[in-house]
Amino acid sequence: MKLPADRLRKLATALLESRGASAESARLQTDLLLEAELRGLPSHGLQRLPLLLSRLDQGLADARTRGTGTWQRRAFLSVDGEHGLGPVVLMNVMRILRNNLKETGFAVAAIRNANHIGMLAYYVEAAARDGLIAIVMSTSEALVHPFGGTRAMLGTNPIAIGIPAGDAPFVLDLATSVVSMGKINNHAMRGIPIPVGWAVDADGRQTVDPQAAMRGAIAPFGDAKGYGLGLAVELLVAALAGSDLAPDVRGTLDDTHAANKGDLLILIDPSAGMGSIPALAAYLDRLRLSPPLDPARPVAIPGDGARARRAASSQAGIELPQSLFEHLIALEAA
Amino acid sequence: MKLPADRLRKLATALLESRGASAESARLQTDLLLEAELRGLPSHGLQRLPLLLSRLDQGLADARTRGTGTWQRRAFLSVDGEHGLGPVVLMNVMRILRNNLKETGFAVAAIRNANHIGMLAYYVEAAARDGLIAIVMSTSEALVHPFGGTRAMLGTNPIAIGIPAGDAPFVLDLATSVVSMGKINNHAMRGIPIPVGWAVDADGRQTVDPQAAMRGAIAPFGDAKGYGLGLAVELLVAALAGSDLAPDVRGTLDDTHAANKGDLLILIDPSAGMGSIPALAAYLDRLRLSPPLDPARPVAIPGDGARARRAASSQAGIELPQSLFEHLIALEAA
Repeated sequence: MKLPADRLRKLATALLESRGASAESARLQTDLLLEAELRGLPSHGLQRLPLLLSRLDQGLADARTRGTGTWQRRAFLSVDGEHGLGPVVLMNVMRILRNNLKETGFAVAAIRNANHIGMLAYYVEAAARDGLIAIVMSTSEALVHPFGGTRAMLGTNPIAIGIPAGDAPFVLDLATSVVSMGKINNHAMRGIPIPVGWAVDADGRQTVDPQAAMRGAIAPFGDAKGYGLGLAVELLVAALAGSDLAPDVRGTLDDTHAANKGDLLILIDPSAGMGSIPALAAYLDRLRLSPPLDPARPVAIPGDGARARRAASSQAGIELPQSLFEHLIALEAA
Repeated sequence: MKLPADRLRKLATALLESRGASAESARLQTDLLLEAELRGLPSHGLQRLPLLLSRLDQGLADARTRGTGTWQRRAFLSVDGEHGLGPVVLMNVMRILRNNLKETGFAVAAIRNANHIGMLAYYVEAAARDGLIAIVMSTSEALVHPFGGTRAMLGTNPIAIGIPAGDAPFVLDLATSVVSMGKINNHAMRGIPIPVGWAVDADGRQTVDPQAAMRGAIAPFGDAKGYGLGLAVELLVAALAGSDLAPDVRGTLDDTHAANKGDLLILIDPSAGMGSIPALAAYLDRLRLSPPLDPARPVAIPGDGARARRAASSQAGIELPQSLFEHLIALEAA
C-alpha cells in the first residue's frame, strides 16, 4: 500500500517518544528509517522499527542517551554508545568531531555499544552537504563467508563515503557482501526467491531460498577483492572500537542481546587539502556524460540513483507492505 | 631465466646510483621493485625500471629529493613530492607522520608530484610490522571505464590496508580495476591474450588482445560497487592532494611528462584504540581454519599468498624475461 511520508513520520515518531525518546531523538531515528524508504531501500526502512521498539521495551536499547566520547588523542575519539539509538549516537559523535576539525583537519571516532546505525548513506550525505568528507564503516553479526570458504564468519560490513561536489555530492554506500541481509530478509518477507550467487545454505551449497540463506552465509561482493575489503572493515572497526568480531556479535537482528558491534566515523575537512571541490563536480559531470554501454542508461555517479528515487517517492508516497503498516498501527494502539 | 635476488639487487642499485640516487634511496627503490618480483607481481617489478631510469635521464624524476611536507592542520600533512622517487617520498612521509602519531593517534599525508609508488603492499606491510595500521591510496592515468560506461575515465586507483596481527599481518592491496594495467602490459610483453571480461577496446567492445586493451579501457572490479570504490579513491586523492583527475594524469606510464597523480597515506596508532591485536590474530586463524569450498585450497587471509610466494622465490630465485635482463645489462654498460 502507498502511504504519505508525513503519515508514517508521525506514526514512527509517536512510537519512539512513547519509549522515552526525546522529540529530537525520535525525529532523527524516524528520519533515518524514512530516508531509507524514500531512497528505495526498504531493507533499512520501517521494517526495522518493530524490532527496535522491542529492544527499547526489553531495555537492550536506551532512547535517552547520546553516548559518551573521550578524546584518546587529538584526532581520535573513543565512544561508548551506552546502548543508545544508532543515529542518535552517530550524529552526536559527528557534532563532537566537527568541533575538533578546524584544529586537526582529520578525525576519527570509534564507537562501541551503539544500536544499529542503519543506512550509512544518511550520515555521509549529511556531512557532504555541509562541505565535509565523511567515511563510515560498521560491523554486524557473522553473515558472510570468506572468499573460498563456506561458513558465515564476517559481517556484511558496509562502508560509506561522502564527498562534497556541489548540488549532487558523491555518496557511496555499499555492503561488502554481494547483498545486505536486510535485502534477503525483505525477500523472505515478500516470499520471493533470491538470485543465484547471493548465498549458500547451512551446508555450504548454493541456494535461492531466502530462509535457507538466512541460516547459511552470504557471498562477499567482487570475489577475493570484496572479501578482502570486508575483512579490512571487520578488523579496522574491532581494532579501534574494541567491539566484538563477527562470530561473537549480537544485537542488530535480535531483541535478546545488547548490540556489541562497532562503528567508525572518519571526518575530513577538505579545506585543509590542496584540491578544488568545483573541479570534482565538473569531473563527475564529465563521467555522467561519457558514452554509456546501453544508450538508454547513462553512466551514474553513486548517490544519483538514490536522489532520483527520493524525489519520485516524496511525491508519490512510500510503498509499504500492508502487514507491516498494520503491525505498526497495532503497536501504536497497544 | 631464473636469477638470484642479490644479483638483481646490485644491478638495479648501481643503475639508480649512477642517476644520482643516494645509496639509501637506490636501496629503497630497488627493494620495492624486488619485493614485487619476490611476491609474484612482475607487473610492479623490474619491468618498471627502464622507464624510471629514462624519467631520471629526462629530468622528469629527481633521485635526490625526498619531498617536502607541511602540516596544514595537526593531523593533516600536505606533501609536495618535488618529482622525487615514489618510495623515497612515501617512506619519508611515513617517518614524518609517525612523529606526530603519539599526539594525534590518526594522521593523513596527501602527496602530489611524486613518481610512481609501485606496489602499495610494501608500505602498509612495513607499517603493520611496526605495529601501525596504514591505508594507502593512489591514482593513475585514465585506464578504467565507469560501470555502465565504455570510456577510460578513472585510474586503476589501488588501495592498500595493513593491520598488525602478530607474525602474519593483514595486508590487502587491490587495484579497483578488475586487473592492473601493469598486468595487461605484462601479458603484452609475454605475447599472451588476456581473459574475457578484463577490458574493452577503443570502440567499447570486449577484447582479449592486450594491445587493444591498452588503447581501450579496463573494467572496474565488482561491478557497481568496485566502480564506486575506485571513484571514491579518485575523488579523495584529488580533493586532498590537489593532484590531477585521471583524464589529465600523466607520468606513471611515459617518459615525456611529469607525474601529476596523487597519493594518500593514512597512519593510525592502534594503541589509541580499544581493541586487542592478539584478538585480531586469533580471529584470522579461525578464518584460515574455517571450512573451504575446495578442500585442497584453505581459506586465505590477504597477505598470506604473497608471503608464501616470497618465501619460495627467495630460495629459488627470481624469474625474469631474458629480454628484460639483457636490457638492464645494456643500460648498466651504457
